[in-house]
Amino acid sequence: MSEKTVGIKAVAAHAGVSQTTVSHVLNETPHTRVSEETAARVRAAAEELGYRPNRLARGLRTQASDMIGLLTEEIATTPHAGRIILGAQEEASRRNLTLAIINSELNPDPEMDASQIQAFLDRQADGIIYATVYHDVIEAPENLLVRPAALIGARDVAGSIPAVLPDERAGAASVVDMLVARGHRRIAFAASADDVPATRGRLQGYLDAMTRAGLRTDGLVVEGGSDARGGYAATLALLDREPTALFCYNDRMAMGAYRAAADRGLRIPDDLSVVGFDDQAPIPESLFPALTTVALPHYEMGAWAVATLADVIHGTRDAALLAAYPTALHCPLVERDSVAPPLDRAAA
Amino acid sequence: MSEKTVGIKAVAAHAGVSQTTVSHVLNETPHTRVSEETAARVRAAAEELGYRPNRLARGLRTQASDMIGLLTEEIATTPHAGRIILGAQEEASRRNLTLAIINSELNPDPEMDASQIQAFLDRQADGIIYATVYHDVIEAPENLLVRPAALIGARDVAGSIPAVLPDERAGAASVVDMLVARGHRRIAFAASADDVPATRGRLQGYLDAMTRAGLRTDGLVVEGGSDARGGYAATLALLDREPTALFCYNDRMAMGAYRAAADRGLRIPDDLSVVGFDDQAPIPESLFPALTTVALPHYEMGAWAVATLADVIHGTRDAALLAAYPTALHCPLVERDSVAPPLDRAAA
Repeated sequence: MSEKTVGIKAVAAHAGVSQTTVSHVLNETPHTRVSEETAARVRAAAEELGYRPNRLARGLRTQASDMIGLLTEEIATTPHAGRIILGAQEEASRRNLTLAIINSELNPDPEMDASQIQAFLDRQADGIIYATVYHDVIEAPENLLVRPAALIGARDVAGSIPAVLPDERAGAASVVDMLVARGHRRIAFAASADDVPATRGRLQGYLDAMTRAGLRTDGLVVEGGSDARGGYAATLALLDREPTALFCYNDRMAMGAYRAAADRGLRIPDDLSVVGFDDQAPIPESLFPALTTVALPHYEMGAWAVATLADVIHGTRDAALLAAYPTALHCPLVERDSVAPPLDRAAA
Repeated sequence: MSEKTVGIKAVAAHAGVSQTTVSHVLNETPHTRVSEETAARVRAAAEELGYRPNRLARGLRTQASDMIGLLTEEIATTPHAGRIILGAQEEASRRNLTLAIINSELNPDPEMDASQIQAFLDRQADGIIYATVYHDVIEAPENLLVRPAALIGARDVAGSIPAVLPDERAGAASVVDMLVARGHRRIAFAASADDVPATRGRLQGYLDAMTRAGLRTDGLVVEGGSDARGGYAATLALLDREPTALFCYNDRMAMGAYRAAADRGLRIPDDLSVVGFDDQAPIPESLFPALTTVALPHYEMGAWAVATLADVIHGTRDAALLAAYPTALHCPLVERDSVAPPLDRAAA
């Protein structure tokens, strides 16, 4: 069973036809014009040479059969992966590709990912998208390197896979720019203590823009858990410095910030403007006043990955070039009701 | 190309072997014991009869190749579909099945669903799971009726597909039972105005348990939008009736209830116990005090559907019997910090 199989090339030569013709005949590809005479000649040639297609590596090919696999983390806990999937799916429809989601482990095990990828490659995926939330640089499983691939939310160590990331740093800077434009100068930042890329990106963006605006930040950054409880504690500490605006690492911390402001008798936005990050439903619309925040382009990243992979598979774009420069997508401000110009105050 | 193909049965008869042996030889199934002599005899018989496997209906069969498709709504907006997928995926792993997610449209179009299902059947799915959020009775697309299938969150009109639903009515009743056990007698319900199954189930469960406990409900049910704003308005109206406990249709309404209570100077849980429904992260843990609520068994429904489908495919369970009686899964109470016995009050 393991003897070397004779391939299409040899059958084509033997039958005196092109490899494409051989493929059409042996695959019984519909809608191709091969005369019965030619088809019989090809089949005879195949039989004479002992041609046996490797069924273990081939399968159904329909007209819309280019298939891309999407492996994503954290599907069960946040709407983020869902938006990535939706963006990927809708781009796949536009490109007449089939998208299959491989897995949704909460705590990805690199070994398990590699075997899931392999299982999918065995099913003839034309490309793989690997979407991650928790890492900014990953060492891609080897089997990801032998097939067209794209990364969402991370770059790979070797810099050999096209990647797309959210431009969190610029998104955070745009929050400060907006607050400064509204007249704020004492702008505090409730920072996260999590060891994730977003922690560093958002803090850096805040610092970049404060520096550009010539504003001081000493005493205006306090770290806390990236949840409502952490936001509550960080905000209480920051309120002692009398900021006019508070930028929170994420919407959950902002929820805690609202409670801290209420406990101190401060009205939002009149006494304190508050901005979050993530646009994580249902928080922003459920708070009162509704929370101004920054949205992550998960849908766009899903669509970018599928579009890019489709182009790479069809050879219209250069994977190496795409891999060398990860694409950073814009994180748009979502303005709601929690920001107002600062009241005139003595301590500016 | 469209002549009737000779099948495995005829080849087996011609070669004097079993159909299984023919299948192993022609599929080159690894790890099967067929002598080279027998294999040659089978191949010769196949050639003599002009056997040509229908490649358009077959494909890669790996050892873990039984494949189930999962079509789910609303994947992008709530964690619910994500939990269904996770439960389905983990059960699929235990059963050595491959699970592929077909689609994630926000607003499912029955026609589109049917064509997505068809695309997936063409890829040789052994079964289909159809998960829905918004409907309790659906008219299943026809192609769902010709393959082993299972429904999550709905029954089908014809009662011919095995189905699993959350037992929301019993879950709501258990909230009232718990509050009564803690000493509450004036228990209000902030109801939803949405035209969805949960609206009716949860209200009915509340009424069932109140009746069983011999408690009055007049004036204690107010309808509102199923969000924080709607919960805020409904709660203000209900607080005029001085309930000691407030059961909200969902966690988002409970978020608004918390704000209404604060606006009226009421402490939770001392002055007012509050219970939600859904256990929708991040709300319950982000509120202070953390919200007692009811969880929906989405993970368990995903796992049930895969397990049931696997059993139906392998013939160990009867689909008709499963279809006749939809399975209602338990919705467990998730007790946190928002319930306490009522303070002694004149108006009990």
